[in-house]
Amino acid sequence: MPMIRECIVTTINAEGKVHIAPLGLIADPLADGGEGWIIAPFKPSTTLDNLRATPFAVANFTDDVLVFAGCLTGNKDWPTRASTHVPGAVLEGALAHAELAVDHVEEDEQRPRFHCRVAHEATHAPFKGFNRAQVAVIEAAILASRLHMLPREKIERELAYLQIAVEKTAGPREHEAWRLLVEKIEDHYKHASPE
Amino acid sequence: MPMIRECIVTTINAEGKVHIAPLGLIADPLADGGEGWIIAPFKPSTTLDNLRATPFAVANFTDDVLVFAGCLTGNKDWPTRASTHVPGAVLEGALAHAELAVDHVEEDEQRPRFHCRVAHEATHAPFKGFNRAQVAVIEAAILASRLHMLPREKIERELAYLQIAVEKTAGPREHEAWRLLVEKIEDHYKHASPE
Repeated sequence: MPMIRECIVTTINAEGKVHIAPLGLIADPLADGGEGWIIAPFKPSTTLDNLRATPFAVANFTDDVLVFAGCLTGNKDWPTRASTHVPGAVLEGALAHAELAVDHVEEDEQRPRFHCRVAHEATHAPFKGFNRAQVAVIEAAILASRLHMLPREKIERELAYLQIAVEKTAGPREHEAWRLLVEKIEDHYKHASPE
Repeated sequence: MPMIRECIVTTINAEGKVHIAPLGLIADPLADGGEGWIIAPFKPSTTLDNLRATPFAVANFTDDVLVFAGCLTGNKDWPTRASTHVPGAVLEGALAHAELAVDHVEEDEQRPRFHCRVAHEATHAPFKGFNRAQVAVIEAAILASRLHMLPREKIERELAYLQIAVEKTAGPREHEAWRLLVEKIEDHYKHASPE
């Protein structure tokens, strides 16, 4: 079973405009023993359009969960710099990044799969161990992106569970990211029509 | 509120014998703007005895959850090499590590707090993004270490929730780590006397 890594994927459109999106990349063992990544964006999405226009991407491995929460709550304005080996952009502050070139595409009705090879990799800062609150924020971000597909009772039950790890292990950025997502979810239900 | 990072802490006793233990380190902002770590081992524990005998430790920041699961299921035999700036041992395969020297100790009845300064840091391999299954394994490891303190119903409900992320995002090492922990938990209840 392939491993999935949650990261921030940057792509550019034909005019070079950068798009930032949290995505789960699928590890793709290559025939030569190396490692590739599969990007499987939903239809329709800007990441999908960009990959058709410019078949390159950057996988930004950041532990800054505010970027994930920001992208889901309307703040996609995070600083980037130009990537060096493919056309694209590297997220400032990422612990590491991989510059990707699309090798081939498996078409699919819902989620076409862009098989990518790694053109360049770089490490910028050390991993500092697992923080349970960070992944609680990632889980909450996934819930926040599926409010129309999941029962409210399930979302509220899972948030209550995840909140324990946030209270016990979060630093200030994790608290802020959690607050943004919980506000978005509460807002959604406030404006939902009663049944 | 201080951030907690789950890592593998190595300490040595007076004879230089290495002890490996999964622990949550508490980030400790220093007066000079730097960052220290607090190690708060439970009484009694080998890590506590070792820190009294040899006031140094290495924080190993690994994403290999098999080491966490192994330590909780009887396999503490993981390869290490000598650390370079303090007496101690670095876990092979860690993405990064920090060599720590105890600065002062806050005594406590249950968990004395060893305030440490960083004597040396090194990065060995890039962070590759959040993997939800890895943190599900960490959460299961915490449950497995608290079987005598938590209600069975709570443990089984949380495992069922965590298993979803394992099924969706794990690679082979995460599956193996998950299996070890679930077996340990099932074994515990198999041998528990019926109420």
